[in-house]
Amino acid sequence: MNDYRFSEDVGSFFRSPVREIFKRVDLNAIYSFAGGYPSAETFPLEEIRATMSEVIDKYGSKAFQYGATQGVPELRAAVAKRCGVDQERVQITSSSQQGIDVCTRVLVNPGDVILTSSPSYLGALQSFRSYRADIRGVAHNADIDAYISAYEDVIAEVKAEGKHISFLYMIPDFQNPSGESLTLEERQRLVALAQKYDFLIVEDSPYRELRYEGEHIPTMYSLDPDRVIHLGSFSKIFAPGFRLGWAIAHPEILDKIYVCKQSLDLCPPIFDQYVAAEFLSSGKLDANLQKSIELYKGKRDLLLGLLEKHMPEGVTWTHPEGGLFLFLTMPEGFEAVKFYDRSLDAGVAYVAGEFFHPDGSGKNTMRMNFSFMSPEKITEGVRLLADLLRDEIL
Amino acid sequence: MNDYRFSEDVGSFFRSPVREIFKRVDLNAIYSFAGGYPSAETFPLEEIRATMSEVIDKYGSKAFQYGATQGVPELRAAVAKRCGVDQERVQITSSSQQGIDVCTRVLVNPGDVILTSSPSYLGALQSFRSYRADIRGVAHNADIDAYISAYEDVIAEVKAEGKHISFLYMIPDFQNPSGESLTLEERQRLVALAQKYDFLIVEDSPYRELRYEGEHIPTMYSLDPDRVIHLGSFSKIFAPGFRLGWAIAHPEILDKIYVCKQSLDLCPPIFDQYVAAEFLSSGKLDANLQKSIELYKGKRDLLLGLLEKHMPEGVTWTHPEGGLFLFLTMPEGFEAVKFYDRSLDAGVAYVAGEFFHPDGSGKNTMRMNFSFMSPEKITEGVRLLADLLRDEIL
Repeated sequence: MNDYRFSEDVGSFFRSPVREIFKRVDLNAIYSFAGGYPSAETFPLEEIRATMSEVIDKYGSKAFQYGATQGVPELRAAVAKRCGVDQERVQITSSSQQGIDVCTRVLVNPGDVILTSSPSYLGALQSFRSYRADIRGVAHNADIDAYISAYEDVIAEVKAEGKHISFLYMIPDFQNPSGESLTLEERQRLVALAQKYDFLIVEDSPYRELRYEGEHIPTMYSLDPDRVIHLGSFSKIFAPGFRLGWAIAHPEILDKIYVCKQSLDLCPPIFDQYVAAEFLSSGKLDANLQKSIELYKGKRDLLLGLLEKHMPEGVTWTHPEGGLFLFLTMPEGFEAVKFYDRSLDAGVAYVAGEFFHPDGSGKNTMRMNFSFMSPEKITEGVRLLADLLRDEIL
Repeated sequence: MNDYRFSEDVGSFFRSPVREIFKRVDLNAIYSFAGGYPSAETFPLEEIRATMSEVIDKYGSKAFQYGATQGVPELRAAVAKRCGVDQERVQITSSSQQGIDVCTRVLVNPGDVILTSSPSYLGALQSFRSYRADIRGVAHNADIDAYISAYEDVIAEVKAEGKHISFLYMIPDFQNPSGESLTLEERQRLVALAQKYDFLIVEDSPYRELRYEGEHIPTMYSLDPDRVIHLGSFSKIFAPGFRLGWAIAHPEILDKIYVCKQSLDLCPPIFDQYVAAEFLSSGKLDANLQKSIELYKGKRDLLLGLLEKHMPEGVTWTHPEGGLFLFLTMPEGFEAVKFYDRSLDAGVAYVAGEFFHPDGSGKNTMRMNFSFMSPEKITEGVRLLADLLRDEIL
């Protein structure tokens, strides 16, 4: 049998370029600014081991049985408390990627418009495309009136085409890939826009708690809890290997996500949820998070200093106040995808910026992660990359 | 905001009636023949605890980091060995329900036909409907020519309507809900039918290893490995709380599933996969499975004996050689859904058979699970149910 017939959605699937990189190289053997991996040293192995044993003592076989589709009550309660919302508004997801996917699944028909920033998280773009959404990206602009007006223009275009806007997808805190955050005023203006034109907002917030300077800014969810779906993740504040996240939303939306999740995978992994619940409610998660923040702040400062010292003229970058990434812009004409083979041959990996741009622009940009590597490897990696770039650009 | 607009798929979502029951009652407080829960005593808590500690020693932080979308190589290799297939044909899924869901997602467009037995697994029907598939069920018939001919009739109907048959969904071993298995000849004839009319087969096989008598029958996959997608699960042979299963398929199909899974949830839970891999390759899984088989065989025999002893005339049931379920048929006119309130008030839960019938027939049937409860509770539960049925029927 050689001629399989697939669904039409399959034509819109696209491979994660990050995962294609990981197929080619061993991340630990090279200088990897690619990926969004937490540092392995932030996983508190002995505390996890002890917590696992406690979970077996406390819950016994219940930790290995099927569980509620919404998630185990202990974890929903802990997340609700942490986020200051009612437990009835919390759905545990099998990874925050699943949170993005189920929102798209229950809200979007093929051809519906999803508004987002450009650049935006490529795993989200991957999910949006897989449901054949029409993705419209808007670049950030420090002039807030021009910024909002650019959204108004896109909305007018969409309305003129007779299309439905399903939601605006935003990562307001330490965005992936740019590392930048939205100001409170920008959040307020975007929420007002959603109210004016009656669309939803999906607020993806995996990095929010990784702040290294400045003050926390209110979530978009807090500005309109019935219009904003808030997605969270344990991947960056605990460990990605558990594949656990959460969605917070109006009960009517959550109910659709719940029924969808039944047929997706019945329920999130049970034992892992109890471990996360114990870690969270015992305060161990916060203590460990504090250590991660200190570690990552040091790595961010190191990377910023190294870029300043080594990068050739014409290269600029963002200055994130938190998160895992910063974004590099090379002179016009530079092509990060083409440069990739050369860079990888020299042992340096990054992710080309065009993959984060819904319209394929941003060819002269790249995303750099600073959480994963050791300070020594960051130092050597930047030196290598800067030498290669200098040679390429000049 | 009161007027959310959802995707068209949402109109086809349906709630699992089993999970609706679980919302109403505490399973442990009643006599539950509902659900497909393994017995809690089959979870080897101390061996799991030791294995978890070994995994932390052996893999360290790698067990808590992101991992490959296909699953960790150690688990793929262990599953490939167990199933006698090439590792390149194995995708680890975040639950076997996800296996069903991704197959449907990559193969089915709205309106495409999925052939299946009637009755069939309701979680699969739930997933099929959520993608707006046109589900056509065929009742089993002990006369194999009549059985195959019934499929031929449905296929002719579908062709006359100009519709595309995507796949045949079958649970050949100890089917959910009937408990019955397909003979080798039935498997061969169904595979020949798929070859003749050029459709795929999704073989869902979560119960295959729970055989209490008779000989293993070759999988449908083994009869045509390029046409059959084989789905397996750790839920019934290890523990459902890990939410792990696998899909075995032609690499071209698996590649589509792989790209789909990237945007669904990136990768299956990592730590859980290592635990399953260790359990499988150490032989602990098989030793534990042997104990489960003995336990469940005893429960099946007990249930069959009790039904024989207590059930009123006019009630018949299947005699499964394995698995977790048998299927009860009451006289025409009996309505299992209506009877439910009365039964639940008396403390006995089951699942009404009509939910397993794509066309809503089978109103006088019910599924009974015999794995979950203790022998004492099975005994008392059957006595109670039989009294209620006798009163209702006579």
